[in-house]
Amino acid sequence: MLEELKKKVYEANMLLPKYGLVTFTWGNVSGIDRESGLFAIKPSGVPYEELSPEDMVIVDLNGKVVEGKYRPSSDTATHVELYKAFKTIGGVVHTHSSYATSWAQSGRDIPCYGTTHADYFYGDIPCLRCLTKEEIEDAYEENTGHLIVNEFARLNRDPEAVPACLCKNHGPFCWGKDPYHAVESAVVLEEVAKMAYRTELINPRVERAPQDLQDKHYYRKHGKNAYYGQN
Amino acid sequence: MLEELKKKVYEANMLLPKYGLVTFTWGNVSGIDRESGLFAIKPSGVPYEELSPEDMVIVDLNGKVVEGKYRPSSDTATHVELYKAFKTIGGVVHTHSSYATSWAQSGRDIPCYGTTHADYFYGDIPCLRCLTKEEIEDAYEENTGHLIVNEFARLNRDPEAVPACLCKNHGPFCWGKDPYHAVESAVVLEEVAKMAYRTELINPRVERAPQDLQDKHYYRKHGKNAYYGQN
Amino acid sequence: MLEELKKKVYEANMLLPKYGLVTFTWGNVSGIDRESGLFAIKPSGVPYEELSPEDMVIVDLNGKVVEGKYRPSSDTATHVELYKAFKTIGGVVHTHSSYATSWAQSGRDIPCYGTTHADYFYGDIPCLRCLTKEEIEDAYEENTGHLIVNEFARLNRDPEAVPACLCKNHGPFCWGKDPYHAVESAVVLEEVAKMAYRTELINPRVERAPQDLQDKHYYRKHGKNAYYGQN
Amino acid sequence: MLEELKKKVYEANMLLPKYGLVTFTWGNVSGIDRESGLFAIKPSGVPYEELSPEDMVIVDLNGKVVEGKYRPSSDTATHVELYKAFKTIGGVVHTHSSYATSWAQSGRDIPCYGTTHADYFYGDIPCLRCLTKEEIEDAYEENTGHLIVNEFARLNRDPEAVPACLCKNHGPFCWGKDPYHAVESAVVLEEVAKMAYRTELINPRVERAPQDLQDKHYYRKHGKNAYYGQN
Repeated sequence: MLEELKKKVYEANMLLPKYGLVTFTWGNVSGIDRESGLFAIKPSGVPYEELSPEDMVIVDLNGKVVEGKYRPSSDTATHVELYKAFKTIGGVVHTHSSYATSWAQSGRDIPCYGTTHADYFYGDIPCLRCLTKEEIEDAYEENTGHLIVNEFARLNRDPEAVPACLCKNHGPFCWGKDPYHAVESAVVLEEVAKMAYRTELINPRVERAPQDLQDKHYYRKHGKNAYYGQN
Repeated sequence: MLEELKKKVYEANMLLPKYGLVTFTWGNVSGIDRESGLFAIKPSGVPYEELSPEDMVIVDLNGKVVEGKYRPSSDTATHVELYKAFKTIGGVVHTHSSYATSWAQSGRDIPCYGTTHADYFYGDIPCLRCLTKEEIEDAYEENTGHLIVNEFARLNRDPEAVPACLCKNHGPFCWGKDPYHAVESAVVLEEVAKMAYRTELINPRVERAPQDLQDKHYYRKHGKNAYYGQN
Repeated sequence: MLEELKKKVYEANMLLPKYGLVTFTWGNVSGIDRESGLFAIKPSGVPYEELSPEDMVIVDLNGKVVEGKYRPSSDTATHVELYKAFKTIGGVVHTHSSYATSWAQSGRDIPCYGTTHADYFYGDIPCLRCLTKEEIEDAYEENTGHLIVNEFARLNRDPEAVPACLCKNHGPFCWGKDPYHAVESAVVLEEVAKMAYRTELINPRVERAPQDLQDKHYYRKHGKNAYYGQN
Repeated sequence: MLEELKKKVYEANMLLPKYGLVTFTWGNVSGIDRESGLFAIKPSGVPYEELSPEDMVIVDLNGKVVEGKYRPSSDTATHVELYKAFKTIGGVVHTHSSYATSWAQSGRDIPCYGTTHADYFYGDIPCLRCLTKEEIEDAYEENTGHLIVNEFARLNRDPEAVPACLCKNHGPFCWGKDPYHAVESAVVLEEVAKMAYRTELINPRVERAPQDLQDKHYYRKHGKNAYYGQN
């Protein structure tokens, strides 16, 4: 069932250790088949070195397991909410990558200080509030998804143009048009988080990159006038 | 004698260089067989690349070597005290891992800033005082063990819920239900120490993660209502 | 066509991942054949692991592609301007290497704090201003080249003695007598940027290395009285 | 000639890239045969990946090359002075390792903040002043050696108990009873420099480790009452 998708999701999961984004099992990638409304996701707590494509768990958009010998990631309910609300995304990633998580713990948005950031993320990367006691006790993972969706709406941010956010005191969620591009967002986020941290230590009074430069780089790679790459 | 235990302790020791927690021979892991009251521990000062399972030294809870061609780790007396006082632990680790040791040198507890910390450690990770001149001269390694045990009692901390501490101006001691899980504590401690350091540099006025969130993550992975992983 | 040059430029490009200077495709190296006025450059957005020497694109000093199945790097127009103005250079490199880019984002020159810097760069490494809205909209990459050339003239800096600069909110451009030495400049710049960052955190009131020491080290490796190395 | 020594010096040189202490050719190790008064040293500017034991250059204590097809390290005259003054050392290392060099650039001694430091270095690691214009112009490398020797005398530091120093705005020189132990000093220095840097960022008001603890750890590993390791 959905063998091709399971393979892609497996491969995207294996990029997390390759790019140094996970310790132990602290991360998970999923990918969705929009036609069937089913997605494949990493099983919970299974070490990366033991994973194989068949281990991916197939889940529907009610969060019900449809196929798989393992329990899905404990964050599955968050993935569900993101797929339901962000109609154009095809992959979701959660990690505890070190620099992005440090920003999440600090409770601050990551300011756009340069073109590396602007090439992939349009504007600052938002750090969302903690869940309330009630939200945590009621349905923690599902409410994490609701929060992301609601905050992007409230802040008027386009999830395609800002394919990542930080959950305060927790860590990043990232997404993309497919599982590979969701991981790409996670890799760039980590690099951007690392450089923003150092930028502020080098110059505590630093200001954001000028909006013109942000626009230039973002639209050099995105939209109908893009001219970066081969397509 | 205790071949199975020696193998496990050997393998746990070899995880220290794998996870980047040691330089040269600056670390040691032990594991105990509670039935016989004997534990296996790394020999003192022997390079990791030359170790084999048979090199592990068998020691009793009086600190006496029962079997082994080598001298046991110079920290053996500390391991003894931890095994005697913390009845449910099965493995002990000492390292000079870089970030945890930097916190130990700074003399500060590591505050719980997020879920990565809360997933493994319930509350702040305590930094214990230095030994006094008398404690050092009398029986340095044994008194290090006494200090850890006494401070956990005084601070009313549960060693199962906080499987690590920092010894001021020295470095971390970690433990777990077996040698592997003691090393896991050491790996997580290092990651948590690294992120707490960066978190404070990003936001010097940062506060701890809300207690509700800490509880949620700790109990998602521990105790009778845990639902993380496959068991 | 220019097979030897394409091979050298390919090999120099492959040094970028080897020395940890690039994530994904965020970098490019070119090398020029001064006789024909043609240069070879990395194609845009092609992953390093898929590159081969034949993939290098041959471009003339008007920025026109002369040979190649791929589009050249999106930064090609910057390379053109550097080759036209800096007559003695034979290779150009652009990266988003982490520490150099953090300095570029901070908007500060990298002060010469020691002999590692002075061995390769004579004096501080300048951080140039952002392009204006007009310069960005008119011809971004070409104007980046003009800015570098004009600023080096205005600041009276010799591009042979300072084979690198930072573009504010963007990242470094480096050069050298051939593609390999351009990459060498990029590697040293990154190391110098890393150490300058840490130097200021260790001592916020640090001052530059004395000019005598800078001169000694620079001229120990450069010019007619050099005595470092075998030549 | 001195084949055994050349092999040891070669192997010690190759530890520099293994332990991440050098970029390009920025480091050199030598080792002396006290009987003949000759020492073997890395040739100047030759890449580590191209080195072989036969490439080591044999030099006498007047700094004269006695055997070798290459020029010796440009720092040879510094090695000579250290061997002449510090009679019990058998190996010398110079690197630009990143953290130690950052401290050297900052112009500060590395304070003894913990047992990792105290296990290998008795007391703070001194950062020596820059050479004067006259000292630089007269005989830079030889005067670097004189400065180290004179400052250790003036500061009443024992080179056996403090086998390293920082040269301001330059980098570290380290030594030991043989080439291997000189490299060991360089590795530990780098680790100690890294942790001291982080320690101060975690707690800007941190104080040195108590003298009793420093003594305990130093003498646990050195001198007639040492009990660390197997000997």
